[in-house]
Amino acid sequence: MKKWKTLSSKIPFDNKWFKVQQDTVKLPNGKIVDDYFMWKEGDIVLIVAMTKNNEVVLVKQYKHASNEVMVEVPAGYVDKENNPESAAKRELEEETGFTSKKFTHIATLTNNPTKVISNIYIYLAKDVEKTTSIKLDETEDIEVIVKPYKEVVKMILNGEIWVTGSISALFLIFKKLQLI
Amino acid sequence: MKKWKTLSSKIPFDNKWFKVQQDTVKLPNGKIVDDYFMWKEGDIVLIVAMTKNNEVVLVKQYKHASNEVMVEVPAGYVDKENNPESAAKRELEEETGFTSKKFTHIATLTNNPTKVISNIYIYLAKDVEKTTSIKLDETEDIEVIVKPYKEVVKMILNGEIWVTGSISALFLIFKKLQLI
Repeated sequence: MKKWKTLSSKIPFDNKWFKVQQDTVKLPNGKIVDDYFMWKEGDIVLIVAMTKNNEVVLVKQYKHASNEVMVEVPAGYVDKENNPESAAKRELEEETGFTSKKFTHIATLTNNPTKVISNIYIYLAKDVEKTTSIKLDETEDIEVIVKPYKEVVKMILNGEIWVTGSISALFLIFKKLQLI
Repeated sequence: MKKWKTLSSKIPFDNKWFKVQQDTVKLPNGKIVDDYFMWKEGDIVLIVAMTKNNEVVLVKQYKHASNEVMVEVPAGYVDKENNPESAAKRELEEETGFTSKKFTHIATLTNNPTKVISNIYIYLAKDVEKTTSIKLDETEDIEVIVKPYKEVVKMILNGEIWVTGSISALFLIFKKLQLI
């Protein structure tokens, strides 16, 4: 199965907080498409943080695009100066005050391979402990929740956790750890 | 935990294929933010289509934002004239040629509650059968793959299936059907 060929690429909407990329592409059948738009999001880390007793550290926050308070795994953008593992360590500590010496890269996923330019790096943080206080921006308001993994599975099945990145990261790691 | 209040909303990038929404919002602490950007994507259906023998119907396609050939569950947009269930039936038939009389809505998820305005409706199609031929647009090139569910779990664990919507839909439904 053949890939498309990118003939040219530009950023017709170029804001600090949101960039749209427009590609001119040649399809395998020879057709040229000059208006293929994508969101140039940037890469993300998601952290499944587990205590020695297999409890999971989750965060609860208002999310504006869904207009709902959401329960998710801790997450953040991979800034240019950082590698994903550094970003995972920093985001976990800032959002939850939990830290760990055992970070493992479990998988690299994506939310929308059709229209969003972004990799999602999934990290497992083992034996996490609350060692410091939360550091939030003035626009952030986060509640930290610690739940046994069995309860987290129930929260996924009953719809309390409904963001695809969190569900994928949690199920993947619970399955790899043979908890489910 | 309080929601933000939307004071006004506009579409500063308004293309047929891609719309960016800009909200002016008031945060619970009183701060006004006038440049909150989101992708107004529209709603999506994902279909986990299973045969009588618990085989799963998957699709393999080139996806330009990831620049990779991806294996995913069949999916599509919910057009304005349709409800999600009609969209799920149409997309499954068009992309795979498989049909079913048993569609069940299993969950409503979202990929990115922070920056993407879109619900993802997850449907289970049971006892699917190949009853018709595939109907594709001229830009589409799809390979249909039918795999036992145990092999699909392996494909998730070894990274062959790496899109969060597909992973979430498959794990959720396998768990609800007590296959895992």
